[in-house]
Amino acid sequence: MFAATRAPSGSNRQPFRFLVLADGPAATAAKQLIGDAARRLWSAKRQRDGYTQGSAARPDSPKSRLADTMQQYVDALASVPVLILPCLNRYREPEYTEGANIYPACQNLLLAARAYGYGGVLTMFHKEVEPQLRTMLAIPDSTAMSATITLGRPAGQHGQVRRRPLSELVYQDAWGKPAPWAVDPPGTAFTAAGPPRPVAGADAGPAAPGPPSSADGSP
Amino acid sequence: MFAATRAPSGSNRQPFRFLVLADGPAATAAKQLIGDAARRLWSAKRQRDGYTQGSAARPDSPKSRLADTMQQYVDALASVPVLILPCLNRYREPEYTEGANIYPACQNLLLAARAYGYGGVLTMFHKEVEPQLRTMLAIPDSTAMSATITLGRPAGQHGQVRRRPLSELVYQDAWGKPAPWAVDPPGTAFTAAGPPRPVAGADAGPAAPGPPSSADGSP
Repeated sequence: MFAATRAPSGSNRQPFRFLVLADGPAATAAKQLIGDAARRLWSAKRQRDGYTQGSAARPDSPKSRLADTMQQYVDALASVPVLILPCLNRYREPEYTEGANIYPACQNLLLAARAYGYGGVLTMFHKEVEPQLRTMLAIPDSTAMSATITLGRPAGQHGQVRRRPLSELVYQDAWGKPAPWAVDPPGTAFTAAGPPRPVAGADAGPAAPGPPSSADGSP
Repeated sequence: MFAATRAPSGSNRQPFRFLVLADGPAATAAKQLIGDAARRLWSAKRQRDGYTQGSAARPDSPKSRLADTMQQYVDALASVPVLILPCLNRYREPEYTEGANIYPACQNLLLAARAYGYGGVLTMFHKEVEPQLRTMLAIPDSTAMSATITLGRPAGQHGQVRRRPLSELVYQDAWGKPAPWAVDPPGTAFTAAGPPRPVAGADAGPAAPGPPSSADGSP
């Protein structure tokens, strides 16, 4: 939490607040609520996006493995050791840059967790049950609920982070113009971006690990 | 830039893009445009918020020293070695949590810069001249311009980060309920939050260093 709160914010107002839910009665109830919501959302998405159709149903396909990981994640969500609700005390109307005051702190938290050997996952699963959470935890209406972060010991290994090549992400002088010096270090592993595409009886090809995004982007 | 692009994003879509402006003709023109906007905005704020009134006008007052730092910053903005525009390729309508896809990458960038001995400052000065910048740099309308980051060698020393005490920022089980284990390490330096209050002939008391916020929050 110390690392999180060292983050910058506009005019150093420090409008970020972190509500930590561990094992008290309120924490248990709130984690259950978010966990139930996560299972419902994932169940619908699993059906809608064809995670069990065609060749994606093969247990060793990337899409199938991602689906298994997601299922384990949402099934375990209510029993994670620590769930943190990063919130933002708004001082102006909601708008698309307000996250500059809260997500740098979230990133510091995820990085610190990883440095200690923990795994962190940031999702928006709380949105589904936000009114109930506000009542349950006495969160003011003027405060934005900006994310849900779960922390625990990772079940698997943190793999190397995989991303698009730098040449696709870094431009110089004009939009879309590659920066010649932006070259990935030797040994960098790459990934396609985004969740696997819906399949229609056939595999969608080499799929990218998708939701949830974690401190290192691996599922 | 490598550190920036290792950041997480929703479903690992990696919608972040970084437009780097160094010393080409387009870069020079864009930096000038943003620098001019920053000087106008700061000049108006300096007047409006009383940075030169009453005891705040004393050269050694916190408010006066902050004003001097800001003036130096906006005066030098057009000639910073590197200005980066972090952008977000939107895949849904703008909303208040979209920053979860771009500001973690910005924080990674600022942290990496500091590790190398550079100073980074994140502002929203581009907003004032956004239409001109879009034309000048061919930035698509569907892409959010999420921040302006300047990088360079700091003129002074990076001081210790000062923040509110953890007890004000970290709650447990319910909103506003202190977490007994959230204790700042020995030697932590504290600050009041936010920009100095407007003065009316009298000093506003021990003022917090305010805008711009940097990687470590010090001005």
